[in-house]
Amino acid sequence: MKIALIQQRCEADRTTNLQTTMEAVREAACRGAKLVLLCELHTSHYFCKTEEPANFDLAEPIPGPTTEQLGRLAAELRLVIIASLFEYRATGLYHHTAVVLEQNGTLAGRYRKMHIPDDPGYYEKYYFTPGDLGFTPIDTSVGRLGLLICWDQWFPEAARLMALAGAELLLYPTAIGWDPIDNSDEQRRQLEAWITVQRGHAIANGLPLLACNRTGFEPDSSSQSGGIRFWGSSFACGPQGEILAQATTDQPQTVIADIEPSYSEQVRRIWPFLRDRRIDAYPELLQRFRDDS
Amino acid sequence: MKIALIQQRCEADRTTNLQTTMEAVREAACRGAKLVLLCELHTSHYFCKTEEPANFDLAEPIPGPTTEQLGRLAAELRLVIIASLFEYRATGLYHHTAVVLEQNGTLAGRYRKMHIPDDPGYYEKYYFTPGDLGFTPIDTSVGRLGLLICWDQWFPEAARLMALAGAELLLYPTAIGWDPIDNSDEQRRQLEAWITVQRGHAIANGLPLLACNRTGFEPDSSSQSGGIRFWGSSFACGPQGEILAQATTDQPQTVIADIEPSYSEQVRRIWPFLRDRRIDAYPELLQRFRDDS
Repeated sequence: MKIALIQQRCEADRTTNLQTTMEAVREAACRGAKLVLLCELHTSHYFCKTEEPANFDLAEPIPGPTTEQLGRLAAELRLVIIASLFEYRATGLYHHTAVVLEQNGTLAGRYRKMHIPDDPGYYEKYYFTPGDLGFTPIDTSVGRLGLLICWDQWFPEAARLMALAGAELLLYPTAIGWDPIDNSDEQRRQLEAWITVQRGHAIANGLPLLACNRTGFEPDSSSQSGGIRFWGSSFACGPQGEILAQATTDQPQTVIADIEPSYSEQVRRIWPFLRDRRIDAYPELLQRFRDDS
Repeated sequence: MKIALIQQRCEADRTTNLQTTMEAVREAACRGAKLVLLCELHTSHYFCKTEEPANFDLAEPIPGPTTEQLGRLAAELRLVIIASLFEYRATGLYHHTAVVLEQNGTLAGRYRKMHIPDDPGYYEKYYFTPGDLGFTPIDTSVGRLGLLICWDQWFPEAARLMALAGAELLLYPTAIGWDPIDNSDEQRRQLEAWITVQRGHAIANGLPLLACNRTGFEPDSSSQSGGIRFWGSSFACGPQGEILAQATTDQPQTVIADIEPSYSEQVRRIWPFLRDRRIDAYPELLQRFRDDS
């Protein structure tokens, strides 16, 4: 199955961004993609660089204008689109939510980001209520999708729970980049860690994995920081963590890769990790820390 | 702190192997190592290539001859040695057990391998009763050690449980290699996956990690398989998964690396994963699979 990752440079304006996205999705369809993954919060600048009440105006209901627009496109092109939106759920209740639009244009399901970061430049705990839908894959015409979002990618638990629920593919819309004050060694370590930890999830679970990041520099309007240089590098890997395709760091790019879901069957036969998990000895995974030890 | 990995080619004879090991440990001490990690089951050929009752003769009690011999060496050189042995616990009850010998020669603790593989060429379920000591780090003069063994390295749960119990370093004595019938692409993917998944554990937990593997070709006396070409590549990485030192694939080698445990404090401040774990949403980690989903 051909998949596409739409690595995008985002502007402040929603209409401009969606136009760019939709052109890229059309291009991906021409190149044979049946599943298209967009980057995180692709309809705006990454607004979590500061805590600003006016930014809640960016939220929208789901279903809502963006899912309708992308749903029409999915139906026209006969492919599955995965988008990530700032969800307005109720007054004062917002989530960061990824949605799956089926190739008939319907909303196949949503995932509300479970792990929420909060660090200088990424003030997401201010904007996003932690997800309450759990780690539940979404069934689609192209397979059972283990859809997660950005910060989730650092947590082996998230990938494992999706695998245990039968996910056939792990997917991570992402917005991550460099702090310009870090030196080049630190920047290299961070980018490599981001790729490596996700390849590790693919390996530990015997599943292919897609990560789609934004690119380009976005200033911090509050001047608290020097802004973020999003590092792109969107990639697809197979169930042994083998890189199938990878984008550059600094350019918008549509990455096409061939995913063979049935290859997981073969890999899990030689590496039968699910057989050997010591579920009798894992209860402390549900603790914050073992202070008694 | 300087650490050493003793990547060894093992023979059938225990005395020869221990002599090789002890010479390498002396060399590591001369080069300043304070912690020495030996490879898995370093006193013999990797005997799990077949199921053979006579191989239970290789088991020994702990404490026993090898821990006494290595304990004396640890005391003489004033360093911590980590060995991995075939433990005779009772008649018909054997474990695969890693031991920590303190720099005063005493046995600081043991870890009994929790995840037991069983695959063509690695018939460990026949020899090793699954560990019953849980994922409990061992306190030593050089820090709290998250000691695990080989197959454990594919399970994010094992590394996480050690981190949650306060481990400051993850360590994996290992015996893994290539099946000569696999082609070079598959061999490359397997070696890279082995390194990547472990670097992933270092990253996800903000901890340095040591993996020590054996090297050399060992035939399968039963001729059921073409034997195993152990792939060496013993390595040390830091808490961002950055490789600090790595051995070759095909030669015995003593790898020395500098580990700075306090660097974890810095890394966990920029990547505070332990803060954001969704322990409320992890109960299904204790299930084998979610068949209902």
